[in-house]
Amino acid sequence: MVQAWKDYQDVNKDRFLNELLDLLRIPSISAKSENKPDMKRCAEAVKARLLEAGVQTAEIYETEGHPIVYAEIIIDPAKPTVLVYGHYDVQPPEPLELWKSAPFEPTIIDGKIFARGSCDDKGQFYMHIKALETLVQTKTLENNIKFCIEGEEEIGSPNLGKFVASHKELLKADCILISDSSMISLETPSIDIGVRGLSYIEVEVTGPNRDLHSGVYGGAVANPITMLAKMIASMHDENNHITIPGFYDDVVEATKAERELMAKAPFDEQEFKDDLGVKELWGEKGFTTNERTGIRPTLEINGIWGGYIGEGAKTVLPAKAFAKISARLVPNQTSDKITSLMLDHLQKIAPKNVTVKATLHHGGEPYMTPLDSTAYKAAAKAMETTFGKTPIPVRGGGSIPICALFEKELGIKIVFMGFGLDSDNLHSPNEKFNIDNFYKGIETIPYFHKYFSEMTK
Amino acid sequence: MVQAWKDYQDVNKDRFLNELLDLLRIPSISAKSENKPDMKRCAEAVKARLLEAGVQTAEIYETEGHPIVYAEIIIDPAKPTVLVYGHYDVQPPEPLELWKSAPFEPTIIDGKIFARGSCDDKGQFYMHIKALETLVQTKTLENNIKFCIEGEEEIGSPNLGKFVASHKELLKADCILISDSSMISLETPSIDIGVRGLSYIEVEVTGPNRDLHSGVYGGAVANPITMLAKMIASMHDENNHITIPGFYDDVVEATKAERELMAKAPFDEQEFKDDLGVKELWGEKGFTTNERTGIRPTLEINGIWGGYIGEGAKTVLPAKAFAKISARLVPNQTSDKITSLMLDHLQKIAPKNVTVKATLHHGGEPYMTPLDSTAYKAAAKAMETTFGKTPIPVRGGGSIPICALFEKELGIKIVFMGFGLDSDNLHSPNEKFNIDNFYKGIETIPYFHKYFSEMTK
Repeated sequence: MVQAWKDYQDVNKDRFLNELLDLLRIPSISAKSENKPDMKRCAEAVKARLLEAGVQTAEIYETEGHPIVYAEIIIDPAKPTVLVYGHYDVQPPEPLELWKSAPFEPTIIDGKIFARGSCDDKGQFYMHIKALETLVQTKTLENNIKFCIEGEEEIGSPNLGKFVASHKELLKADCILISDSSMISLETPSIDIGVRGLSYIEVEVTGPNRDLHSGVYGGAVANPITMLAKMIASMHDENNHITIPGFYDDVVEATKAERELMAKAPFDEQEFKDDLGVKELWGEKGFTTNERTGIRPTLEINGIWGGYIGEGAKTVLPAKAFAKISARLVPNQTSDKITSLMLDHLQKIAPKNVTVKATLHHGGEPYMTPLDSTAYKAAAKAMETTFGKTPIPVRGGGSIPICALFEKELGIKIVFMGFGLDSDNLHSPNEKFNIDNFYKGIETIPYFHKYFSEMTK
Repeated sequence: MVQAWKDYQDVNKDRFLNELLDLLRIPSISAKSENKPDMKRCAEAVKARLLEAGVQTAEIYETEGHPIVYAEIIIDPAKPTVLVYGHYDVQPPEPLELWKSAPFEPTIIDGKIFARGSCDDKGQFYMHIKALETLVQTKTLENNIKFCIEGEEEIGSPNLGKFVASHKELLKADCILISDSSMISLETPSIDIGVRGLSYIEVEVTGPNRDLHSGVYGGAVANPITMLAKMIASMHDENNHITIPGFYDDVVEATKAERELMAKAPFDEQEFKDDLGVKELWGEKGFTTNERTGIRPTLEINGIWGGYIGEGAKTVLPAKAFAKISARLVPNQTSDKITSLMLDHLQKIAPKNVTVKATLHHGGEPYMTPLDSTAYKAAAKAMETTFGKTPIPVRGGGSIPICALFEKELGIKIVFMGFGLDSDNLHSPNEKFNIDNFYKGIETIPYFHKYFSEMTK
């Protein structure tokens, strides 16, 4: 253990936490146009914190959407460079009534920071800023660090691709380090070696040209809600396989050996069910829960609406019904192909008495980190140092759509060192990040830089 | 034709219209608790207009919900008495963005009054107040008239039953006259001889105990939206028959003769489709459009919601999904029985990995007016006088849940003399009432009183 790091962090830990809380107070919701000024304010705050932490330069790059914050400290161009990626935007906080505390007024209860973005991803990228500060203040930085903190991850990073493609020299590095995922627990550290891809679409089903009285017209005109329900219902068969023709064609089936390894990860089904409050699980026949969320593609309805959804009753046969639908993809599925299959399929199964419009929201490719890459080895050794245990490699269910893009444009490997927990309520009410996990991240990250430098030399 | 009526109405027609517009400016939405003060204000306005029009007494009766306005003019207790029923509450105006003018700022375009409640039912019950004024001012009233104008029709009249049961003497009459329905057109007058019953329920499907990240949990936990969609999809079979066991058991099948008579009502399918903007119609196999909306029971989804329904994308697997579902009933179905069947069926088809809670909003019984009743005959003769044509008896698709209740408690027949049109966008954006229809109603109603008195003597 490097004593100087520990001493510096012990003395400054309360300040580290308070700085994060300040950042969490900014409602940087990328999906909502009304929060555009908050997005700008948040980018400026991130830039300011990076400069205070010791980077040499920090810049805000405008895009057609929300700005990207770039910063760097280059101690010697000949030395290894780590590019840290993170995002300062957050998911919308709705449904607000289910939050126990205000989503943008961080509240600490039992050692947990409750706030939208606490874990995903402000709390996690901020660990990297405080790790950098530790290295700079203790004069122990042995490599170059670049930061690319974007503001559109939660809406599919529509403008990051163009930025990366046109700033290849600026972003040049030896590996990319991302903390935007989870580990099993502080007692059982793990590293995500895969993220799933995504195809996120929206469907609009139109029946009559206006809302109708359900008594006068009901039974004689197709109800778009009923038609949409029939379409959605048909998309999983009785074994919960997805029925879109061609959907599974490019899936690389996991080997028996891989599945056996996965089965060794600690998993208590009863505990899992109790935590979620469900009596029975659900999923594709022939696969375990961990396989269903790790190595299999899935299709979920993320939202549905149509007709009267207010208080009381209204006897309406609505003109329109809508759904947001997303698929999670695994290697070697591609987002473009699956999106096309989904959009085409919805047209094909559209009842002829309604009109269906299906459009893409955003997509992203699946990604896998090789276990023999230097970045993975450095991350595993760093966690071993601070946790006292070798981390387990696992395949996560979420998506970080920019991974495939980074690899393609920059030709370098990515490693996911996530310090969140599955129970952190990402994208849900009462998102939280355990303070212990926050500090553990700040403690571990300097070791990653140290070992990666040593292994790359 | 009674010239005095015509003269009086000609001189006062602009005032009649302006009074209605004032009434339409009050947002008397019974379903929304925030409009409770408007409901009170509207009841007071109705009472004031009744007194101005010439009733002897008018009272506001408080209920556990919204107040009932009762008024009467008794010229001679020995003479026939007509009880006019109407409602001053209106449907919620949502979706607001589809209105071309503000729903509570009545706007006249091409001879049509656009406003929520213009036809359903403020415009229609107001015709009765102005008809009364005509009779009083021309000193030609030959019968007694009572008014019962309630404020909870659009939410299923939860408190009217108790009021009627405890005020039988007050409400005693020889027939009930209601204008809360439509006719075919000014050129083809018609009278509704039946209204359908209603069973309106709400379903809540609960999956996990909180909203989840669809990447982390998707594919492993039942999505309540998908489960709800499967439940809804299963409720109509491939012939669009309703699949709830026992649903059709009590339906009195129409005779061949009845169906032949119905087939004679003017109906142009292409015109109907063009008006609604649909390419194909939908409905129960084996029945025509008029049969589907008139003599057959139906099941419609009036609203659905769950997950993220805001702008942009959110990768959530929601904890809950909801739907509002209503059935229209025909003789001899009863609302209690069908509601039970619906609630039980939803529990029976509930997938075991979710929890389903289904509850009743409100219900009402179907009702039929006998063609040989004095009330029907008087209404037909009145319309014949002012339209120059015998009205066609038709069975309407809507519901006026209080009909069966009135008949049961007061033991008298109801006649529906509706002056709206099917195209009036009841319960929809841009609800309207043609000014010509409003005046035609005011012209016709005095004849109803005259003929009903003569026939009852």
